[in-house]
Amino acid sequence: MLYYNDLKEDEVHILILGGTGFIGSHLIDALLLENHTIIVIDRTIKFTRQHQHINYIQSDFSNRKVLIQALNGIDLVIHLISTTGPKSSNDNPIFDTQSNLVNTIQLLELMRQTQVQRLIYFSSGGTVYGIPSTTPIPETHPKQPLCSYGITKVAIENHIYMHQTLYGLQATILRPSNPYGPRQASIGSQGVIATFVNRMLNQQAITIWGDGSVIRDYIYISDLVAACLTVVKQEISGTFNIGSGHGHSLLEIVTQLESILGVKAIIEYQAKRSFDIPTLILETTAAQKQLGWKPIIKLNEGVQQYCHWLTQ
Amino acid sequence: MLYYNDLKEDEVHILILGGTGFIGSHLIDALLLENHTIIVIDRTIKFTRQHQHINYIQSDFSNRKVLIQALNGIDLVIHLISTTGPKSSNDNPIFDTQSNLVNTIQLLELMRQTQVQRLIYFSSGGTVYGIPSTTPIPETHPKQPLCSYGITKVAIENHIYMHQTLYGLQATILRPSNPYGPRQASIGSQGVIATFVNRMLNQQAITIWGDGSVIRDYIYISDLVAACLTVVKQEISGTFNIGSGHGHSLLEIVTQLESILGVKAIIEYQAKRSFDIPTLILETTAAQKQLGWKPIIKLNEGVQQYCHWLTQ
Repeated sequence: MLYYNDLKEDEVHILILGGTGFIGSHLIDALLLENHTIIVIDRTIKFTRQHQHINYIQSDFSNRKVLIQALNGIDLVIHLISTTGPKSSNDNPIFDTQSNLVNTIQLLELMRQTQVQRLIYFSSGGTVYGIPSTTPIPETHPKQPLCSYGITKVAIENHIYMHQTLYGLQATILRPSNPYGPRQASIGSQGVIATFVNRMLNQQAITIWGDGSVIRDYIYISDLVAACLTVVKQEISGTFNIGSGHGHSLLEIVTQLESILGVKAIIEYQAKRSFDIPTLILETTAAQKQLGWKPIIKLNEGVQQYCHWLTQ
Repeated sequence: MLYYNDLKEDEVHILILGGTGFIGSHLIDALLLENHTIIVIDRTIKFTRQHQHINYIQSDFSNRKVLIQALNGIDLVIHLISTTGPKSSNDNPIFDTQSNLVNTIQLLELMRQTQVQRLIYFSSGGTVYGIPSTTPIPETHPKQPLCSYGITKVAIENHIYMHQTLYGLQATILRPSNPYGPRQASIGSQGVIATFVNRMLNQQAITIWGDGSVIRDYIYISDLVAACLTVVKQEISGTFNIGSGHGHSLLEIVTQLESILGVKAIIEYQAKRSFDIPTLILETTAAQKQLGWKPIIKLNEGVQQYCHWLTQ
């Protein structure tokens, strides 16, 4: 009985918005190991597992009624939804603003009404800072995003900060670098590693804008999930970069993939894009010190694990 | 003929959004002295003057068709519209976001489509910084607004910055402190000086939240208009605080008004509000150096001019 009570005390009722996608599905796998009760709201039901502790609701998160019902009895909301990506957001910044910012403001207001006091929000370490003036980039770096996606993330962060200061919300903002790993979509623009691997395995050309020297910080999915889990357990407020702390150029990625896959890449070079930032590496000292977290998986291991998952 | 040509060269076709309000009407008076051609879009027609060089259009600026027509042949847009105030914005942050941010994103997109390349935007020195970590506050201070009004202003500034960087918009952002002067509305929450003067003259009590020690930077309307005129003439891009650089407490304001009006104020003290920032004074070195502008009117002169206008 003591064991049971201990478990009940640790159990958290979690509402995950966007819980069936790439990051959400891994997060749920990890949370279920710790016996939490989970409600998921997502527009589509992609990667799901049947489990007595999960309740899936298929809905757009703009739906007020669904949200109010789902928030009943919830201890913690983990908000992973984004309806756009950094590149696609500039095609329609009004849609980006309506579907992400306006809906998240509604979420914050409903959380306040229903007295749900904890939030973990997935922001974006890759876009909120704009062109970095220092490398690696600390959380205190000025925020001058160059895409609507990043502008919206900053505005959402600011609304969260306001709710913390004025209304006592207990919130943690994670700013991941470029996450990659199993289940990442290889079509569209979710991640360069997934896209490159899939095209190379199909003997299709990969596109590189510019000369391939663009440097990014790639974080393996299990490291990102581990960071989120430490926040679920420790209830630490704040804003944290979650990255590997290391930078790799696109050409380095291609060389690694050629070696792992045993396939020569066909590269189509296109003109450099105005919104591409040359070097983006996150400083993660704050997360390491305050969360007691650190990234474990090196790029070559992570890429090998992804390729193994894809080809098994 | 030489004189005529010179004039034509200096003439700018200006679209003023929100041109009939407190700031806009003073700005128009000043611009007409320099022979510019002006189109005004405003929801209501408040302070107007008939003039062959002004065309008033009564419309909400969400109206796409009206905007596209008005932008035809325009050199410069001056955007003064805000549908909310710092205090009222938190009553309905979704309305604040829809009516200000979404509509301004549409404006930026229409300016890009119609190739109108210059913008002066009135942001807010009083709200974008949040709780200051330094006094006076420079433009580089982190932006952590504590009201939806300020969050929206920051998001608009970020969209403008993105349009500058990606699409070549030539933009100037002015961040005024607390403007005051003739024509300021005395009902509602447009400005503390106008509200206090009008209530004191009517023997009504004035409300002070907290102990009256809250310090603000008040800028007289003619100084603010002068800053905007220098930008119209010089086409200098950037973001500039426009304030007096001096701070005055609410109780100081009351004492000054008592002396000028010869009326003893009836003060109703209310509990301090969570979103009231104790001290807010703007650093204006950037505007002074880059625009060659400086504030001229001291608080006691400005208050006297306002009282004179009101009681004449």
